[in-house]
Amino acid sequence: MDYVYGPGRNHLFVPGPVNIPEPVLRAMNRNNEDYRSPAVPAMTKTLLEDVKKIFKTTSGTPFMIPTTGTGAWESALTNTLSPGDRIVSFLIGQFSLLWIDQQQRLKFNVDVVESEWGQGANLDVLESKIAEDTAHTIKAICIVHNETATGVTNNLAKVRKILDNYMHPALFLVDGVSSICALDFRMDEWGVDVALTGSQKALSLPTGIGIVCASPKALEASKTAKSVRVFFDWNDYLKFYKLGTYWPYTPSIQLLYGLRTALDLVFEEGLDNVIARHSRLGKATRLAVEAWGLKNCTQSEEWVSDTVTAVLVPPYIDSTEIVKRAWKRYNLSLGLGLNKIAGKVFRIGHLGNLNELQLLGCLAGVEMVLKDVGYPVKLGSGVAAASAYFQNNTPLIPSRI
Amino acid sequence: MDYVYGPGRNHLFVPGPVNIPEPVLRAMNRNNEDYRSPAVPAMTKTLLEDVKKIFKTTSGTPFMIPTTGTGAWESALTNTLSPGDRIVSFLIGQFSLLWIDQQQRLKFNVDVVESEWGQGANLDVLESKIAEDTAHTIKAICIVHNETATGVTNNLAKVRKILDNYMHPALFLVDGVSSICALDFRMDEWGVDVALTGSQKALSLPTGIGIVCASPKALEASKTAKSVRVFFDWNDYLKFYKLGTYWPYTPSIQLLYGLRTALDLVFEEGLDNVIARHSRLGKATRLAVEAWGLKNCTQSEEWVSDTVTAVLVPPYIDSTEIVKRAWKRYNLSLGLGLNKIAGKVFRIGHLGNLNELQLLGCLAGVEMVLKDVGYPVKLGSGVAAASAYFQNNTPLIPSRI
Amino acid sequence: MDYVYGPGRNHLFVPGPVNIPEPVLRAMNRNNEDYRSPAVPAMTKTLLEDVKKIFKTTSGTPFMIPTTGTGAWESALTNTLSPGDRIVSFLIGQFSLLWIDQQQRLKFNVDVVESEWGQGANLDVLESKIAEDTAHTIKAICIVHNETATGVTNNLAKVRKILDNYMHPALFLVDGVSSICALDFRMDEWGVDVALTGSQKALSLPTGIGIVCASPKALEASKTAKSVRVFFDWNDYLKFYKLGTYWPYTPSIQLLYGLRTALDLVFEEGLDNVIARHSRLGKATRLAVEAWGLKNCTQSEEWVSDTVTAVLVPPYIDSTEIVKRAWKRYNLSLGLGLNKIAGKVFRIGHLGNLNELQLLGCLAGVEMVLKDVGYPVKLGSGVAAASAYFQNNTPLIPSRI
Amino acid sequence: MDYVYGPGRNHLFVPGPVNIPEPVLRAMNRNNEDYRSPAVPAMTKTLLEDVKKIFKTTSGTPFMIPTTGTGAWESALTNTLSPGDRIVSFLIGQFSLLWIDQQQRLKFNVDVVESEWGQGANLDVLESKIAEDTAHTIKAICIVHNETATGVTNNLAKVRKILDNYMHPALFLVDGVSSICALDFRMDEWGVDVALTGSQKALSLPTGIGIVCASPKALEASKTAKSVRVFFDWNDYLKFYKLGTYWPYTPSIQLLYGLRTALDLVFEEGLDNVIARHSRLGKATRLAVEAWGLKNCTQSEEWVSDTVTAVLVPPYIDSTEIVKRAWKRYNLSLGLGLNKIAGKVFRIGHLGNLNELQLLGCLAGVEMVLKDVGYPVKLGSGVAAASAYFQNNTPLIPSRI
Repeated sequence: MDYVYGPGRNHLFVPGPVNIPEPVLRAMNRNNEDYRSPAVPAMTKTLLEDVKKIFKTTSGTPFMIPTTGTGAWESALTNTLSPGDRIVSFLIGQFSLLWIDQQQRLKFNVDVVESEWGQGANLDVLESKIAEDTAHTIKAICIVHNETATGVTNNLAKVRKILDNYMHPALFLVDGVSSICALDFRMDEWGVDVALTGSQKALSLPTGIGIVCASPKALEASKTAKSVRVFFDWNDYLKFYKLGTYWPYTPSIQLLYGLRTALDLVFEEGLDNVIARHSRLGKATRLAVEAWGLKNCTQSEEWVSDTVTAVLVPPYIDSTEIVKRAWKRYNLSLGLGLNKIAGKVFRIGHLGNLNELQLLGCLAGVEMVLKDVGYPVKLGSGVAAASAYFQNNTPLIPSRI
Repeated sequence: MDYVYGPGRNHLFVPGPVNIPEPVLRAMNRNNEDYRSPAVPAMTKTLLEDVKKIFKTTSGTPFMIPTTGTGAWESALTNTLSPGDRIVSFLIGQFSLLWIDQQQRLKFNVDVVESEWGQGANLDVLESKIAEDTAHTIKAICIVHNETATGVTNNLAKVRKILDNYMHPALFLVDGVSSICALDFRMDEWGVDVALTGSQKALSLPTGIGIVCASPKALEASKTAKSVRVFFDWNDYLKFYKLGTYWPYTPSIQLLYGLRTALDLVFEEGLDNVIARHSRLGKATRLAVEAWGLKNCTQSEEWVSDTVTAVLVPPYIDSTEIVKRAWKRYNLSLGLGLNKIAGKVFRIGHLGNLNELQLLGCLAGVEMVLKDVGYPVKLGSGVAAASAYFQNNTPLIPSRI
Repeated sequence: MDYVYGPGRNHLFVPGPVNIPEPVLRAMNRNNEDYRSPAVPAMTKTLLEDVKKIFKTTSGTPFMIPTTGTGAWESALTNTLSPGDRIVSFLIGQFSLLWIDQQQRLKFNVDVVESEWGQGANLDVLESKIAEDTAHTIKAICIVHNETATGVTNNLAKVRKILDNYMHPALFLVDGVSSICALDFRMDEWGVDVALTGSQKALSLPTGIGIVCASPKALEASKTAKSVRVFFDWNDYLKFYKLGTYWPYTPSIQLLYGLRTALDLVFEEGLDNVIARHSRLGKATRLAVEAWGLKNCTQSEEWVSDTVTAVLVPPYIDSTEIVKRAWKRYNLSLGLGLNKIAGKVFRIGHLGNLNELQLLGCLAGVEMVLKDVGYPVKLGSGVAAASAYFQNNTPLIPSRI
Repeated sequence: MDYVYGPGRNHLFVPGPVNIPEPVLRAMNRNNEDYRSPAVPAMTKTLLEDVKKIFKTTSGTPFMIPTTGTGAWESALTNTLSPGDRIVSFLIGQFSLLWIDQQQRLKFNVDVVESEWGQGANLDVLESKIAEDTAHTIKAICIVHNETATGVTNNLAKVRKILDNYMHPALFLVDGVSSICALDFRMDEWGVDVALTGSQKALSLPTGIGIVCASPKALEASKTAKSVRVFFDWNDYLKFYKLGTYWPYTPSIQLLYGLRTALDLVFEEGLDNVIARHSRLGKATRLAVEAWGLKNCTQSEEWVSDTVTAVLVPPYIDSTEIVKRAWKRYNLSLGLGLNKIAGKVFRIGHLGNLNELQLLGCLAGVEMVLKDVGYPVKLGSGVAAASAYFQNNTPLIPSRI
């Protein structure tokens, strides 16, 4: 039996790992296989082709690494940079902080650009740095597309524009962990050099695959990058890509079949429809927060995130209690506030294979929990606001028209 | 791939088949087994013991028949009655109607007591009939505990009382398909002679087991009942019970393991807590209906059902459109109005392994659909009413305190 | 945890229920669904079309009844015959015996033609009876295609020939439980009026669907047949077929998806290849038995079965001990001898989704068990005989050429 | 549908990934969960305690890293050593070669001790090196317990004895990927400092967890080791162990529940029984090879492996053809010969959740394939030899006595 059983479904609204759709669970329900048989490479080939579509790249080279997002970060950095390299990195929340910590421990010279948590990356500072750097000492810009801790989405097109304006050759490395396959992400158009995500986020799989996609420029950089690496070395993959066997070490057969199905579901729905659905879910969540009289941690509309909303609670409430109570009373899993904003925000993840009524159930639960902890919410108010938006904006399910 | 895929979970709120909890799905995810090995009888023995608990009987004998509710009905009738036997049967909705149709086709002499759909069984008429029947020509009373088509729960204690008052020996046969393991059902206390349910209802399994429980008096009756029967004959089971091998023909291994887990979940939650949860879900649904300004098909509070609510729609709306649209736009499965009340009601099933937030998601969906079809509902109103009730009445999940 | 765990796979070689292939397990690993949504009828329609192919009929009408083989028998009989009708039925083993018992309990006038167990149906006796019956008092011939208890396959083409020779109008009812989708079965060509099988046999699903297929003549007969029936009544299905909703009562969603996949697998392999594979497995098993110096229960080559082999053991050995020991020591599930031949035979089921190496593992296990119980088998002898046959006769797996 | 379907089970006999038992598949068949809820840490705590048992350590500290064996290697090395450190490493086959390649790329000063492939680690050379190294320049000994490419098991007790005899402080790092939980492995008794395995080997799970276990001495070394590391850094785990939340980054929920069940199965069978079963399977395989007139790649009895057997084929046969044909004709997955011995050996993996009859099926398949490719094997000979051993040595399944 499970460790902590509650009747009915668990309502999983942390911003990852997210709900796995039944067809994916089914696809993964299988015995191991010999990954050296002809079947696994044949499937891998289709995965490598199709995974590029969710990055919106045709020129990129994807690597599906048996690791988590943290490992994907490490792969992006060590394959393209050498110890001591100067990189500009934006600190805007817990996950960018952790990435910066990794960058420093990997011995890069990290030029940290910090914003208040709740704000986006300060691109004005970036612009000055780039403008000043005529010697091109900056080797890479590292930025999270969507900071999962605060629900802040950065403007990647603008980063590219700055680099282009100054014809600066810095590599453009993007953490797309809570964005790719949910938010509009355009690797080729934005000239992203390395983009990465994890299987347990918008792809709605279990944890276990870090997907890293490298531009031709990034691949070129990997030839001279001196960071020590073995497990995360792209070269081992490239060698096996050439051989047509694809895997330098044992992949998870289950995750490969799961990814195949996850991609099939995305394409059946249509990637643009997937993105539109996330936009709908994000907007509705923000309307609910507003109806509750609460503030979004994200300080300006330009940065709002369609995959996660961090909700600020009044000072007299400990947001940790909200998360605990939601789980204990309503089988609802919300995200904690992390680090600096621990106790001050709770987070609603609304990404992955999720629909409107699931979110409305969550919002109804949040309302009850808010009341439980003493916040004078009007029950039904957030649901009403979100519903009004959904009722006007939700298309028919295409396959059911 | 599925035939008609929609993103996110399907919201299954028909009054059966209902949502299967993950632990049950897991338990059924297995290869076939030899049912003549020692393992299957050992497990079957525990099932037969434990299944009696959900009927609240110690003296009854359960039969787990590889069939549906319709087959369970047939088993109840043919094992206890002979063609031509007079039975009193209550027609109060589509499922009692179908049972009566079966009774007639099985050549019983059916004395039908009809009520308006939305009302309970007319027990006054029963009382007169029993009072008059000093010759004991009435061999059985057939009644559905909960009419799934109209959301009407009958008062079984009262039926027993009438029979007792007149010391009438008629058998008391109860369709508990949408009640047992969800509503308070007391086989021994109420002197029910045959009670039955189906696996796909409150037990939250797939369709495939009709569970029929017979009192000692019913077993006695089976010795002389002349209705022709083979597949549904209790005797074949009793023979194998004695042998300790239990199965006259091949059971579904998967359903046996599923039932084992389903019962484990019920006992872990506590049967009384399960019943209380259904009471909470039923009450909240009715409060939502009221908040929407709509009427419950059930005409009086004494009959309201905690497992299914049939909602009357205004004459200018076709309830079939509500069901269609819910499925097409929101991935929400509601119950249709059946037969006489087709187009006039839609049904919300709230039984089985279900929790508060799932129901609130459903109610939010119903609100949007009502608006879609032109009913001037105030979005959020039903959710607010239901939430207010839940927020005051939902206990902590015991395993998480 | 399972009730009786052993390391490694269980080797399931009872003649049903049989091994379920992984793709079918996956297909069934799903929540319930509303069977009144458009999706379920759409899939049902494809199932009804495709299931006819495994009966090799274009004119037949299939019914997928939520029951076991016993229920399918009852459906075949009660829909086509009236109490008192004279039928000729062949007793050649435990399953034909049980069917005859059912026929008698259903009040038909059963003209039993008995053979020694191990022999096929005595068609000479049939011919005399048909020849004599110029008054056409015989309403039906009931015969099992493959007697699972003895491993005897009857010659159905010859039955048809006899009926045709005498232009006798008797209905031709066939139990194809352990034959259809494994042995060559030709409903239309052989003029079979009702044929039936169960999901847990060659289709390699869990128990739960009895598939009954009726010829136009059988459907015609059902209009006047007076046997009392409700649950098994074809008319209820036909009514819903016309409506396009297909289901008079709740089907098992899981089994429908499972059947969809099971049929897909059969067609992917090719039905004729499936039959050839069974022929290969049957032949190899018989060669092993011969190599062990044991006798097949089937007394003549004309009746040997390609789905199950009943092996006679020497009088000083109790075959029940073989079955027990196989399970206790080698996690091997063999079939018991039943009734008259209990203790005298054990059975190897070799039907369903099974391949050569699985069977060889089983045969190796049988050899060790034979030695365990004191039979002086030469270890490896049966495997050698079977392997020699396989090595000469097994084609490449088509999808892997 | 699967990419390359064949009827019946795939016979998976590569030396990893291995067959997953049904209870583990069931346990993993679940939605994601919030790993920050109280449930996941509670389970993790039991896993960390129980996983130590399969290493036979009480003083070790385990790390369950979301990675493969290659990542586990990297974790072992980078946490305990600094670039430039001298290590002695044994090259005896493809996997020790790959580890050495990693050691060199991680900038250690690798003192390679090479043996002919098919021989064990040359411990005489080790002894000389240790004897000479009075200055303790050797910081670590790296050895694979079981070389999966050649089926060679090294004598770890002897390595410890050499180090002890010379009171040499070198760390003792062991790749137990194809040994731990299958062969007798005694971390504490043998003074192993870091031992590691992968989930897809003897634990019979999918790929995805690298389990690394560190002695107190190894933990101490990690405080000063200067190798750059982040994802593989033990410190991040230790920090979260202290907090009681256990996970520095998102684990695979499915693998955690799978590991829980895998360990439960091991303890239910008994770890010593598991090891005895592997010994039985290994011995039987070697007897079969001998009966076929073929040679084991392992050159001496002292090194034979109970988890994998590499079989040398005659020069006129290409072993790659054997592997291909096994898969194409018999749905049998064997291991290829790798690198130097490509074409010269094929490998039979006999580790994990596997039983006697599964292996016999495999051996029967190998015989047929050998004949297919022109080797004059006597069909049945290997099975006979293996069966004779099994029949004398297989105990009853404990739970079934």
